[in-house]
Amino acid sequence: MIDRVFILGTGLLGTSVGLALRAAGFRGSIAGWNRSPEQAQTALRMGALDTVASDPLEAARMADVVLLAVPILATLDWMEKLAPILGPDQLVTDVGSTKREIAAAASRLFNQPGRAAFLPGHPMAGKEKGGASLADVNLFRGAMWLLTPAQGAKGTGAMGTGFSPYDKSSENPGALAPEGTSRRASELIADWRHLVARLGAKVLDLDPARHDELVAWVSHLPQFVSTAMSALLEDQVGNAPELKDIGGRALREMTRLGASPYSMWRDIAMTNTEAIDAVLHALEQRLAHLRENLRTPGLRDEFERANRFRRE
Amino acid sequence: MIDRVFILGTGLLGTSVGLALRAAGFRGSIAGWNRSPEQAQTALRMGALDTVASDPLEAARMADVVLLAVPILATLDWMEKLAPILGPDQLVTDVGSTKREIAAAASRLFNQPGRAAFLPGHPMAGKEKGGASLADVNLFRGAMWLLTPAQGAKGTGAMGTGFSPYDKSSENPGALAPEGTSRRASELIADWRHLVARLGAKVLDLDPARHDELVAWVSHLPQFVSTAMSALLEDQVGNAPELKDIGGRALREMTRLGASPYSMWRDIAMTNTEAIDAVLHALEQRLAHLRENLRTPGLRDEFERANRFRRE
Repeated sequence: MIDRVFILGTGLLGTSVGLALRAAGFRGSIAGWNRSPEQAQTALRMGALDTVASDPLEAARMADVVLLAVPILATLDWMEKLAPILGPDQLVTDVGSTKREIAAAASRLFNQPGRAAFLPGHPMAGKEKGGASLADVNLFRGAMWLLTPAQGAKGTGAMGTGFSPYDKSSENPGALAPEGTSRRASELIADWRHLVARLGAKVLDLDPARHDELVAWVSHLPQFVSTAMSALLEDQVGNAPELKDIGGRALREMTRLGASPYSMWRDIAMTNTEAIDAVLHALEQRLAHLRENLRTPGLRDEFERANRFRRE
Repeated sequence: MIDRVFILGTGLLGTSVGLALRAAGFRGSIAGWNRSPEQAQTALRMGALDTVASDPLEAARMADVVLLAVPILATLDWMEKLAPILGPDQLVTDVGSTKREIAAAASRLFNQPGRAAFLPGHPMAGKEKGGASLADVNLFRGAMWLLTPAQGAKGTGAMGTGFSPYDKSSENPGALAPEGTSRRASELIADWRHLVARLGAKVLDLDPARHDELVAWVSHLPQFVSTAMSALLEDQVGNAPELKDIGGRALREMTRLGASPYSMWRDIAMTNTEAIDAVLHALEQRLAHLRENLRTPGLRDEFERANRFRRE
């Protein structure tokens, strides 16, 4: 059903989606555009795109599905630009790492009579460095691809129930189109869900607020801790790089995300400030607790609790 | 020169040393003993040992080199037991993760006329789970093997100079025997240093106090942060294990060390309390700083500093 995909933003994620769509047997056309034209040319050379669009608004108008693969604040900007010029038989989706503000914009600008459908998405995949040249056809294999469909969507009984198990309604994806979605757009939504699964990802539907709270724990916490630890160590041992060798694998792993770019995480911090504040504060308290129990049986309790988390 | 090695403690590290010695072409005998006899039998079956000793004190008396590969407090206990029964032509070394208390015990109990030599050691290698069956012939390949020879050792100009570069005097290892070491024990020290290098490890000499401060930053900090994060997440999302999938590789890496056993880390916390307290406190403050700057340019500074740490 989907014939024409337009990838707006051909960085690591956008280019990887293009490569993975082709590898999964998608036979439609894939156009792409990037603010930096070299990135789009790289994506084209890698085979992620058929064409590089010269005018992103025109390319969006021609597409069945527009994939916004740019940082969060840029995604919100493009949503404002695209909403008035797209029609009800089109679908827009995105890959932004926080979903509350994007879902709110989707309800305000899309998902209503005469407007295109918008399905907020968040593939839990990436690398600590970006750019088309690092794109990977297998980036989404085995990864979760979170979706936060419109609040009024049908068949969303499993959403908003806290840390819920996988939403069984994903098995009947057509049922998840928001009220007022055109028949054609409903089909595009169902087809996009199938395509995402064919990329090797596991689809999970979540309420947007719950999504943002959950990713604060399992994604934003690891990032900010790795950044804090890397920055601290840069001050402490940064002038003696050979001593990093002493830390070995443990140190490398715990600071790998220290290489992540501010440009991407600024938008995440901006749009999920409260939840990130809460998880960082919780870890500060946990570290203080551990520190105060370095010579007490409380240390055993913490190690045993940590062991349980890692038990398969 | 070294003909008989006795490995006291055939867990992950002790057994890996046995395997690596053999792979490196060591032709002498390797005896082993473990508090749990099954572990020693496993090490024997894996080829890390020629014989399992029935009496560890007797086996120590027969050895040129005794390698203590047990937790730190047990190492200190064995040092008390071995010092009076070994002779000046023998060498004892260890693999303990903190070195100040062990180096102090070495000065008190060994490294004096009529007593065996003691060379405190710390291979920066391991796994988050222990046991002979996980032993790895390549465990030390590319890893640092830290040594903290006796304070009065000759040729130690590079020690105690803070985060110093590799100690060039390691190239002339015979010079590093403590005053009063017998000629035979000096040769054993030089030979052991050569053997360690043949296991693929990079030898670095450090002052014991400096060692403990340094590993608090690059080894103990990653461990305790991973434990705190794992324990916190166990409380938050432990009841919904499928949601761990959402975190993906970043979460797995940042919590891998959460599986580390209390039994080992209790001794490290006990013997390096002050330094670990200091690094954890520094990270708490750094996290609070990051948290207070989620929406300010201060966030950019921290990401850029972290990026510098990860730059090769």
